[in-house]
Amino acid sequence: MFFIVVVGPAGSGKSHLVDAFGDWLEFNELGVARVNLDPAVEWLPYEPDVDVREYVDARTVMKKHRLGPNGALVASIDMLIDYVDNIRSEIEATQANYVLVDTPGQMELFAFRDTGPYVIREIIGDSRAATLFIFDAVFASNPRSLASSLFLALSARIRLGLPQVNAVSKADLLQPEQMDEIEEQVNSPENLYNALVAKGMDPLMAEAAAKTLEALAPEGSTAPAALRFVSALSGYGLDDIYAALQQVLAGGEDFYTEEPSPRH
Amino acid sequence: MFFIVVVGPAGSGKSHLVDAFGDWLEFNELGVARVNLDPAVEWLPYEPDVDVREYVDARTVMKKHRLGPNGALVASIDMLIDYVDNIRSEIEATQANYVLVDTPGQMELFAFRDTGPYVIREIIGDSRAATLFIFDAVFASNPRSLASSLFLALSARIRLGLPQVNAVSKADLLQPEQMDEIEEQVNSPENLYNALVAKGMDPLMAEAAAKTLEALAPEGSTAPAALRFVSALSGYGLDDIYAALQQVLAGGEDFYTEEPSPRH
Repeated sequence: MFFIVVVGPAGSGKSHLVDAFGDWLEFNELGVARVNLDPAVEWLPYEPDVDVREYVDARTVMKKHRLGPNGALVASIDMLIDYVDNIRSEIEATQANYVLVDTPGQMELFAFRDTGPYVIREIIGDSRAATLFIFDAVFASNPRSLASSLFLALSARIRLGLPQVNAVSKADLLQPEQMDEIEEQVNSPENLYNALVAKGMDPLMAEAAAKTLEALAPEGSTAPAALRFVSALSGYGLDDIYAALQQVLAGGEDFYTEEPSPRH
Repeated sequence: MFFIVVVGPAGSGKSHLVDAFGDWLEFNELGVARVNLDPAVEWLPYEPDVDVREYVDARTVMKKHRLGPNGALVASIDMLIDYVDNIRSEIEATQANYVLVDTPGQMELFAFRDTGPYVIREIIGDSRAATLFIFDAVFASNPRSLASSLFLALSARIRLGLPQVNAVSKADLLQPEQMDEIEEQVNSPENLYNALVAKGMDPLMAEAAAKTLEALAPEGSTAPAALRFVSALSGYGLDDIYAALQQVLAGGEDFYTEEPSPRH
């Protein structure tokens, strides 16, 4: 049982990626469990196999404890701690090969408080796990925003302590030239540094961003670049994401024997 | 008119710092306007001079647009765009020397989406402004969390594009030894690197964190360290924060002539 924890800032497309990637894995005859860890989500594009809203529901928390929307979100995520055993049992019962964990909308409330990393550790137990960190394509296409996303990605990497695959979601919104430009920026720390300084960024900040890129390189890899493109809408890049996760989770051992799907 | 934009992750103590720092400035005979920019806050420790909840209230947005707590927070922050002129006029009418801007609970929804930086730019206009970024003391006292906070701080610095003073809030929760330890870690990139590697962090990540520290150094300063300690509860460090902001906002020109308050 492999756990893939999908993390990214609000609106980056976590749930849509869980939906599309789950379908892709099933199409390739792999068993999938989709786990919703967001007590406040109102609508999901997929049918969750395990849903924390059965234990904690942010709307109910809001009414019962007379909290505002802010307080209810924080409190309901903290309340998940009481249900980690139930969640873990429900996941085990699915006997899935891959467990896709969809995390709360705001990564700040999840990754940057103590509850989120604790809940993840408890749910994973001894199983192998990786984080799939997603950047919003709209952010990645601006070098300054790209740099700030890299800091967030490394911050999540450190907070969650899991091997991490980094992907730009909503790749369908990018023109091929934009993808080439982003790829060129992230395929070497020097290129990123030069692109940022060319955009007027302070050299010390550009240097820190370039170092972040190095630190985000996959474990045991000599390649600095670690940013893949994926689209939940078109399915573009799902095979690439799978290969990268597989590398991290099972040292490249492949569980699906189909031909890779076409890239466009 | 100087703007001080208080930013930090959920629960870091932004509102309490606005309260305490506002009182400190007034005690030193400086005119202060306290601006609440959080449409979802339920309770504030201070009486805001300008309050965006008069224009947008997250609870009302939730009911009117039938949104969940998550969606209501995102939508209500986006709606601030329509009221930047009103907010700016209200602020101007206060004729304050210092405008303390208290930002929404979740910095992710504010600093890492486009609305927040836009609203801030519009409200500030031609006035001088700085960000006061706060780290939670509980986070700063663990080297790995400290590193992840440094990435967040630099990310905010890049997103908001303002000179930035970085402070550890809730210093009253730290023992003097813990403060010394944190200070030693942040007073040179080498020390931070060594502390992180000693805690088992991957050297590339530790290097990125050390670079972040350099990049967070105040503009025009040769000192790499830029982390101050402050307590809204005891008042500790408010004079230090003031001096650091003053350095950034007015090149060190001082508007208050009192003796600095004692440090403990």
